[in-house]
Amino acid sequence: MFVHTVYFWLHYSATAADRTFFEQQLQQLSTIEYIHTAYVGVPAPTRREVIDSSYDYSITFIFKSQVEQDLYQPHPAHKAFVDKCAHLWRRVQVYDAIPF
Amino acid sequence: MFVHTVYFWLHYSATAADRTFFEQQLQQLSTIEYIHTAYVGVPAPTRREVIDSSYDYSITFIFKSQVEQDLYQPHPAHKAFVDKCAHLWRRVQVYDAIPF
Repeated sequence: MFVHTVYFWLHYSATAADRTFFEQQLQQLSTIEYIHTAYVGVPAPTRREVIDSSYDYSITFIFKSQVEQDLYQPHPAHKAFVDKCAHLWRRVQVYDAIPF
Repeated sequence: MFVHTVYFWLHYSATAADRTFFEQQLQQLSTIEYIHTAYVGVPAPTRREVIDSSYDYSITFIFKSQVEQDLYQPHPAHKAFVDKCAHLWRRVQVYDAIPF
């Protein structure tokens, strides 16, 4: 398996329409065929000192292996997502993990 | 669903035995009955500017809802994990997300 997690911080100027658009684009992104299981989310209401809840949206995409993740990265639908949405975020933080 | 993700950075002085012990404790942690799906991992070899691969271990625990996550937090086996392992890490970063 391969766990690909991304946290997005949108520009402070993002409008409600921008957010709706971004949510739709994230949902569409999650349908790329190489993804085994997709979680598209927003921060939970949990608050502890170790929790970063400052992000706006997160994706956790589970791939069967790194092979599928490597096919996902250059996928036209992934590139289209970046082209259409990159102007909306101010920060992106990615963590890739291989379960053992 | 509820996605609970934690990244652990161990002390630079952590030994191979410390790492083996920590890996075993993470695996044991992942068997807590409230967890729906557990991914216990290490950084993937992917390297891009947006990727933080500096952590030592990660867990991504999927819960059916926040209710199960709230039961997991005070679970004796979770508390035992923290008691036995907290001296090993120098930083813990948690992200909690609710999929939509």
